Amino acid sequence: MTSTDEQAVLDANAAFYAAFAAADAEAMDALWARSTEPTCVHPGWDALRGRERVMASWRAIFQSGAPPIACAGPTVHALGTDAALVLCTEVIAGGTLVAANVFVREPDGFRLVHHQASPAPHRPTPARRADLN
Amino acid sequence: MTSTDEQAVLDANAAFYAAFAAADAEAMDALWARSTEPTCVHPGWDALRGRERVMASWRAIFQSGAPPIACAGPTVHALGTDAALVLCTEVIAGGTLVAANVFVREPDGFRLVHHQASPAPHRPTPARRADLN
Repeated sequence: MTSTDEQAVLDANAAFYAAFAAADAEAMDALWARSTEPTCVHPGWDALRGRERVMASWRAIFQSGAPPIACAGPTVHALGTDAALVLCTEVIAGGTLVAANVFVREPDGFRLVHHQASPAPHRPTPARRADLN
Repeated sequence: MTSTDEQAVLDANAAFYAAFAAADAEAMDALWARSTEPTCVHPGWDALRGRERVMASWRAIFQSGAPPIACAGPTVHALGTDAALVLCTEVIAGGTLVAANVFVREPDGFRLVHHQASPAPHRPTPARRADLN
Protein backbone atom coordinates (compact mmCIF):
# COMPACT_ATOMS: atom_id res chain seq x y z
CA MET A 1 0.00 0.00 0.00
CA THR A 2 1.47 3.33 -1.11
CA SER A 3 1.51 6.53 0.93
CA THR A 4 -1.10 7.87 -1.51
CA ASP A 5 -3.30 4.89 -0.64
CA GLU A 6 -2.75 5.48 3.07
CA GLN A 7 -3.80 9.12 2.70
CA ALA A 8 -6.88 8.01 0.73
CA VAL A 9 -7.79 5.67 3.60
CA LEU A 10 -7.34 8.47 6.16
CA ASP A 11 -9.53 10.72 4.00
CA ALA A 12 -12.21 8.01 3.84
CA ASN A 13 -11.99 7.65 7.62
CA ALA A 14 -12.41 11.43 8.06
CA ALA A 15 -15.40 11.37 5.69
CA PHE A 16 -16.94 8.61 7.82
CA TYR A 17 -16.72 10.73 10.97
CA ALA A 18 -18.01 13.81 9.11
CA ALA A 19 -21.07 11.84 7.98
CA PHE A 20 -21.44 10.37 11.49
CA ALA A 21 -21.27 13.80 13.21
CA ALA A 22 -23.69 15.29 10.68
CA ALA A 23 -26.13 12.36 11.01
CA ASP A 24 -26.05 12.25 7.20
CA ALA A 25 -27.52 8.87 6.25
CA GLU A 26 -27.04 9.42 2.52
CA ALA A 27 -23.35 10.28 2.87
CA MET A 28 -22.92 7.35 5.28
CA ASP A 29 -24.49 4.96 2.78
CA ALA A 30 -22.10 6.11 0.04
CA LEU A 31 -19.06 5.45 2.25
CA TRP A 32 -19.78 1.75 2.77
CA ALA A 33 -18.61 -1.02 0.44
CA ARG A 34 -20.79 -2.51 -2.27
CA SER A 35 -18.34 -5.21 -3.43
CA THR A 36 -18.72 -7.16 -0.19
CA GLU A 37 -21.20 -7.41 2.68
CA PRO A 38 -20.07 -5.11 5.51
CA THR A 39 -20.16 -5.77 9.24
CA CYS A 40 -20.52 -3.41 12.19
CA VAL A 41 -20.30 -3.56 15.99
CA HIS A 42 -21.73 -0.49 17.72
CA PRO A 43 -20.90 -0.12 21.45
CA GLY A 44 -23.03 -2.58 23.41
CA TRP A 45 -24.77 -3.91 20.30
CA ASP A 46 -24.68 -7.35 18.80
CA ALA A 47 -22.62 -7.75 15.64
CA LEU A 48 -24.43 -6.65 12.49
CA ARG A 49 -23.74 -8.59 9.30
CA GLY A 50 -24.80 -7.36 5.86
CA ARG A 51 -25.35 -3.99 4.20
CA GLU A 52 -29.07 -3.80 4.93
CA ARG A 53 -28.67 -4.32 8.69
CA VAL A 54 -25.68 -2.00 8.94
CA MET A 55 -27.44 0.84 7.09
CA ALA A 56 -30.61 0.37 9.15
CA SER A 57 -28.47 0.77 12.29
CA TRP A 58 -27.11 4.13 11.11
CA ARG A 59 -30.59 5.36 10.26
CA ALA A 60 -31.74 4.35 13.77
CA ILE A 61 -28.77 6.10 15.40
CA PHE A 62 -29.32 9.24 13.32
CA GLN A 63 -32.96 9.47 14.42
CA SER A 64 -31.65 10.98 17.68
CA GLY A 65 -30.01 13.79 15.71
CA ALA A 66 -26.38 14.68 15.04
CA PRO A 67 -24.18 13.07 17.69
CA PRO A 68 -21.26 15.06 19.12
CA ILE A 69 -18.46 12.79 17.91
CA ALA A 70 -14.93 13.45 16.73
CA CYS A 71 -12.07 11.20 15.67
CA ALA A 72 -8.63 11.60 17.26
CA GLY A 73 -5.26 10.03 16.53
CA PRO A 74 -6.10 7.81 13.56
CA THR A 75 -3.37 5.40 12.43
CA VAL A 76 -3.43 3.32 9.21
CA HIS A 77 -2.44 -0.34 9.16
CA ALA A 78 -2.26 -1.96 5.72
CA LEU A 79 -3.91 -5.35 5.20
CA GLY A 80 -2.18 -6.43 2.02
CA THR A 81 -2.46 -4.07 -0.96
CA ASP A 82 -6.23 -3.57 -1.20
CA ALA A 83 -7.44 -3.21 2.37
CA ALA A 84 -6.46 -1.28 5.48
CA LEU A 85 -7.47 -0.87 9.08
CA VAL A 86 -7.69 2.50 10.80
CA LEU A 87 -7.41 2.54 14.57
CA CYS A 88 -8.54 5.71 16.31
CA THR A 89 -10.10 7.25 19.38
CA GLU A 90 -13.68 8.47 19.20
CA VAL A 91 -14.24 11.49 21.45
CA ILE A 92 -17.90 11.56 22.46
CA ALA A 93 -19.95 13.30 25.12
CA GLY A 94 -18.80 11.90 28.44
CA GLY A 95 -15.78 9.93 27.36
CA THR A 96 -13.92 8.09 24.64
CA LEU A 97 -14.24 4.92 22.60
CA VAL A 98 -11.59 2.90 20.80
CA ALA A 99 -12.60 2.28 17.20
CA ALA A 100 -11.36 0.16 14.32
CA ASN A 101 -12.52 0.93 10.80
CA VAL A 102 -11.64 -1.44 7.97
CA PHE A 103 -11.61 -0.22 4.36
CA VAL A 104 -11.33 -2.08 1.04
CA ARG A 105 -10.36 -0.71 -2.33
CA GLU A 106 -13.30 -0.37 -4.73
CA PRO A 107 -13.24 1.10 -8.26
CA ASP A 108 -14.09 4.60 -6.97
CA GLY A 109 -11.98 4.55 -3.80
CA PHE A 110 -11.67 2.97 -0.37
CA ARG A 111 -14.96 2.01 1.24
CA LEU A 112 -15.85 0.83 4.75
CA VAL A 113 -16.39 -2.88 5.33
CA HIS A 114 -16.21 -2.98 9.13
CA HIS A 115 -16.67 -0.56 12.02
CA GLN A 116 -16.28 -1.51 15.66
CA ALA A 117 -16.27 0.85 18.63
CA SER A 118 -15.47 -0.32 22.17
CA PRO A 119 -15.55 1.54 25.48
CA ALA A 120 -12.09 2.87 26.36
CA PRO A 121 -10.61 3.11 29.85
CA HIS A 122 -12.24 5.93 31.78
CA ARG A 123 -10.20 9.10 31.91
CA PRO A 124 -10.84 12.81 31.49
CA THR A 125 -11.41 13.71 27.84
CA PRO A 126 -9.51 16.72 26.45
CA ALA A 127 -12.64 18.86 26.87
CA ARG A 128 -13.03 17.80 30.49
CA ARG A 129 -9.34 18.33 31.21
CA ALA A 130 -9.73 21.86 29.85
CA ASP A 131 -12.62 22.38 32.26
CA LEU A 132 -10.31 21.51 35.13
CA ASN A 133 -7.75 24.17 34.20
CA MET B 1 -10.65 -15.59 -1.59
CA THR B 2 -11.35 -19.28 -2.20
CA SER B 3 -13.36 -21.57 0.05
CA THR B 4 -10.04 -23.25 0.93
CA ASP B 5 -8.73 -19.86 2.06
CA GLU B 6 -11.88 -19.25 4.07
CA GLN B 7 -11.46 -22.60 5.82
CA ALA B 8 -7.81 -21.76 6.53
CA VAL B 9 -8.93 -18.48 8.11
CA LEU B 10 -11.51 -20.29 10.25
CA ASP B 11 -8.82 -22.79 11.29
CA ALA B 12 -6.51 -19.91 12.26
CA ASN B 13 -9.33 -18.35 14.24
CA ALA B 14 -9.95 -21.65 16.05
CA ALA B 15 -6.22 -21.94 16.79
CA PHE B 16 -6.32 -18.42 18.27
CA TYR B 17 -9.08 -19.38 20.72
CA ALA B 18 -7.33 -22.66 21.55
CA ALA B 19 -4.15 -20.74 22.46
CA PHE B 20 -6.24 -18.16 24.36
CA ALA B 21 -8.14 -20.80 26.38
CA ALA B 22 -4.90 -22.67 27.12
CA ALA B 23 -3.05 -19.45 28.11
CA ASP B 24 -0.32 -20.65 25.75
CA ALA B 25 1.85 -17.58 25.13
CA GLU B 26 4.16 -19.42 22.74
CA ALA B 27 1.31 -20.66 20.54
CA MET B 28 -0.28 -17.20 20.67
CA ASP B 29 2.96 -15.58 19.52
CA ALA B 30 3.17 -17.92 16.54
CA LEU B 31 -0.36 -17.03 15.42
CA TRP B 32 0.29 -13.30 15.02
CA ALA B 33 1.63 -11.68 11.86
CA ARG B 34 5.28 -10.88 11.30
CA SER B 35 4.89 -9.12 7.94
CA THR B 36 3.09 -6.17 9.51
CA GLU B 37 2.70 -4.59 12.95
CA PRO B 38 -0.45 -5.96 14.59
CA THR B 39 -3.02 -4.08 16.68
CA CYS B 40 -5.27 -5.25 19.50
CA VAL B 41 -8.16 -3.87 21.57
CA HIS B 42 -8.92 -5.93 24.69
CA PRO B 43 -12.24 -5.16 26.44
CA GLY B 44 -11.87 -1.88 28.35
CA TRP B 45 -8.23 -1.43 27.30
CA ASP B 46 -6.69 1.26 25.18
CA ALA B 47 -5.72 0.26 21.65
CA LEU B 48 -2.38 -1.54 21.44
CA ARG B 49 -0.22 -0.90 18.38
CA GLY B 50 2.81 -3.02 17.51
CA ARG B 51 3.85 -6.62 18.04
CA GLU B 52 5.79 -6.02 21.25
CA ARG B 53 2.86 -4.33 23.03
CA VAL B 54 0.34 -6.87 21.78
CA MET B 55 2.42 -9.85 22.90
CA ALA B 56 3.11 -8.25 26.29
CA SER B 57 -0.67 -7.89 26.75
CA TRP B 58 -1.22 -11.61 26.17
CA ARG B 59 1.54 -12.54 28.61
CA ALA B 60 -0.09 -10.24 31.20
CA ILE B 61 -3.53 -11.77 30.61
CA PHE B 62 -2.13 -15.31 30.80
CA GLN B 63 -0.53 -14.61 34.20
CA SER B 64 -4.00 -15.13 35.69
CA GLY B 65 -4.10 -18.65 34.26
CA ALA B 66 -6.14 -20.24 31.50
CA PRO B 67 -9.32 -18.20 30.95
CA PRO B 68 -12.61 -20.02 30.35
CA ILE B 69 -13.27 -18.74 26.85
CA ALA B 70 -14.87 -20.27 23.79
CA CYS B 71 -15.67 -18.97 20.32
CA ALA B 72 -19.19 -19.33 18.90
CA GLY B 73 -20.70 -18.61 15.50
CA PRO B 74 -17.63 -17.42 13.57
CA THR B 75 -18.26 -15.96 10.11
CA VAL B 76 -15.58 -15.10 7.53
CA HIS B 77 -15.64 -11.85 5.55
CA ALA B 78 -13.01 -11.53 2.82
CA LEU B 79 -11.02 -8.29 2.60
CA GLY B 80 -9.70 -8.62 -0.94
CA THR B 81 -7.72 -11.76 -1.75
CA ASP B 82 -5.10 -11.74 1.01
CA ALA B 83 -6.93 -10.68 4.16
CA ALA B 84 -10.13 -11.60 5.95
CA LEU B 85 -12.13 -10.62 9.01
CA VAL B 86 -13.74 -13.16 11.31
CA LEU B 87 -16.69 -11.97 13.38
CA CYS B 88 -17.68 -14.17 16.31
CA THR B 89 -19.09 -14.36 19.81
CA GLU B 90 -16.74 -14.99 22.71
CA VAL B 91 -18.44 -16.96 25.47
CA ILE B 92 -16.74 -16.13 28.75
CA ALA B 93 -17.56 -16.54 32.42
CA GLY B 94 -20.54 -14.33 33.12
CA GLY B 95 -21.45 -13.28 29.61
CA THR B 96 -20.46 -12.79 26.02
CA LEU B 97 -18.30 -10.48 23.96
CA VAL B 98 -18.47 -9.60 20.28
CA ALA B 99 -15.07 -10.07 18.65
CA ALA B 100 -13.50 -9.24 15.32
CA ASN B 101 -10.28 -10.96 14.30
CA VAL B 102 -8.44 -9.85 11.16
CA PHE B 103 -6.03 -12.18 9.39
CA VAL B 104 -3.53 -11.60 6.58
CA ARG B 105 -1.93 -14.15 4.30
CA GLU B 106 1.72 -14.82 5.10
CA PRO B 107 4.02 -17.39 3.44
CA ASP B 108 3.12 -20.07 6.00
CA GLY B 109 -0.58 -19.29 6.33
CA PHE B 110 -3.06 -16.72 7.64
CA ARG B 111 -1.87 -14.79 10.68
CA LEU B 112 -3.65 -12.38 13.05
CA VAL B 113 -3.13 -8.65 12.54
CA HIS B 114 -6.01 -7.33 14.67
CA HIS B 115 -8.16 -8.55 17.55
CA GLN B 116 -10.92 -6.51 19.14
CA ALA B 117 -13.44 -7.71 21.70
CA SER B 118 -16.37 -5.56 22.85
CA PRO B 119 -19.00 -6.16 25.52
CA ALA B 120 -22.14 -7.63 23.97
CA PRO B 121 -25.72 -6.90 25.06
CA HIS B 122 -26.44 -8.57 28.37
CA ARG B 123 -28.43 -11.77 28.09
CA PRO B 124 -28.25 -15.23 29.62
CA THR B 125 -25.37 -17.24 28.20
CA PRO B 126 -26.03 -20.85 27.15
CA ALA B 127 -24.43 -22.06 30.40
CA ARG B 128 -26.62 -19.78 32.50
CA ARG B 129 -29.72 -20.74 30.55
CA ALA B 130 -28.88 -24.35 31.31
CA ASP B 131 -28.70 -23.46 34.99
CA LEU B 132 -32.23 -22.13 34.82
CA ASN B 133 -33.65 -25.38 33.45
